Amino acid sequence: MKRTVFFISDGTAITAETLGHSLITQFPDVEFQQVRLPFVDTEMACLEAVHAIDEACERDEAPAVVFNTIVNAQLCEIIGTSKGVILDLFGAFLTPLEQALGVEHQPTVGQAHAVDNFDRYEDRMDATNYAMKHDDGISVDFKDADLILVGVSRCGKTPTCLYMALHYGVKAANYPLTPEDLDEMRLPGFLRRYKYKLVGLNLEPERLAQIRETRKPGSRYATLRQCRQEVDAAESLLRMEGVPLFETTHSSIEEISSRVLLQLGLQREMF
Amino acid sequence: MKRTVFFISDGTAITAETLGHSLITQFPDVEFQQVRLPFVDTEMACLEAVHAIDEACERDEAPAVVFNTIVNAQLCEIIGTSKGVILDLFGAFLTPLEQALGVEHQPTVGQAHAVDNFDRYEDRMDATNYAMKHDDGISVDFKDADLILVGVSRCGKTPTCLYMALHYGVKAANYPLTPEDLDEMRLPGFLRRYKYKLVGLNLEPERLAQIRETRKPGSRYATLRQCRQEVDAAESLLRMEGVPLFETTHSSIEEISSRVLLQLGLQREMF
Repeated sequence: MKRTVFFISDGTAITAETLGHSLITQFPDVEFQQVRLPFVDTEMACLEAVHAIDEACERDEAPAVVFNTIVNAQLCEIIGTSKGVILDLFGAFLTPLEQALGVEHQPTVGQAHAVDNFDRYEDRMDATNYAMKHDDGISVDFKDADLILVGVSRCGKTPTCLYMALHYGVKAANYPLTPEDLDEMRLPGFLRRYKYKLVGLNLEPERLAQIRETRKPGSRYATLRQCRQEVDAAESLLRMEGVPLFETTHSSIEEISSRVLLQLGLQREMF
Repeated sequence: MKRTVFFISDGTAITAETLGHSLITQFPDVEFQQVRLPFVDTEMACLEAVHAIDEACERDEAPAVVFNTIVNAQLCEIIGTSKGVILDLFGAFLTPLEQALGVEHQPTVGQAHAVDNFDRYEDRMDATNYAMKHDDGISVDFKDADLILVGVSRCGKTPTCLYMALHYGVKAANYPLTPEDLDEMRLPGFLRRYKYKLVGLNLEPERLAQIRETRKPGSRYATLRQCRQEVDAAESLLRMEGVPLFETTHSSIEEISSRVLLQLGLQREMF
């Protein structure tokens, strides 16, 4: 069964897509075609959206599902004239939220992913620069780091650091354990000093070999034997040093990031 | 007025936080204290959450608001025993969604931000590596790029590329227009060849000067005069070359990313 879903918003449509995507994962037997329609903030844009929705309904011979976060009631009405099933993600919660808070909401368009707090936005940009400069051992001055991910080469440190920096404004550095570190079975001094900021990542050697093989095919670096040695040594070293360690083989960067922030008690707001 | 909001989930809590954050932006007069509780997937974890919620209600002398995306009904019931106002983000939409699709949902825990599609996840990781290697003119081989952001130094290219790569698996490169490019008033050959992949970013000279000043205080590079020259020249050059241009002074990377993807017709799924 194939069905089209639309994520429609007067802003980026990120909120609509995030909740909509979460909901459709609960229907694994349906094949979804996903269409994002951001910045639908005029009558004309709404009419175009209605046209696209109706076309999808005809093509699928079944109603499209529309995850809508448009704030303006008149524009929502236009979307409502389509043949799709409209799920109004904001509308459903604004009334109970008003009741809970005891105040009325003030309709503001496209604020969810706008720069509403300038300082916090700057923190995110600064943290992203920091992560770029403290990636992969480029700089090992970890004085200003909020956290430092350690692990063998290609275990997922870089994208996880970038994700935490971009979203949470966390100054996340990372350091790849070198063959020398693993031979000597001790952390270098510039890491030991900040042990309380360290979190280790590790993964199954088979998966590591697969990742490395796509990057350096046929290299010694990518052999299962080499990967197994490094993974085992890294685990022993980090356990010995008392560094918390996460298995990442089946985890996404979102999951690893959430666990790392929880582990270190870094309660930062997202966005 | 100060109120505590909780984002509770059996997974990363990213969905709860994304929708919850969007909703509370509609109440600008309330000061919200935001608490993220991810991986609440056992009875014990739920009881701890209830305790935290009740404490917040007492502290604020008003009910906390709980944005909940826990899938398991028994665990939701435990959260429901708290003194908070529970907004069940999944529950509200699963029934209408089942009706629209004509099938029942299959409760799966924490799937929203898990690696449910391995190939797509790999695309995101590859794109992130690509963005790192094609940042700031490090490599100007743009053969495999899905898009190339151009603009003056410090106009927001790097974080925007990283965001698009991490979330949408888009191979986003960027190239800073150099003083030479701006003097000669023409794009270098390695960009001209891929003109259809180019998007320009520009911003107000005052803002650019402010950003550069925090990075290189007192430099000529950060003077308003220099910034104004570069911004004007970049705008002239990009308009002359017919490159679409976005003003980014008041835009977040989420907004810029959405506009860039829309401009180039890159309809990629998020996550």
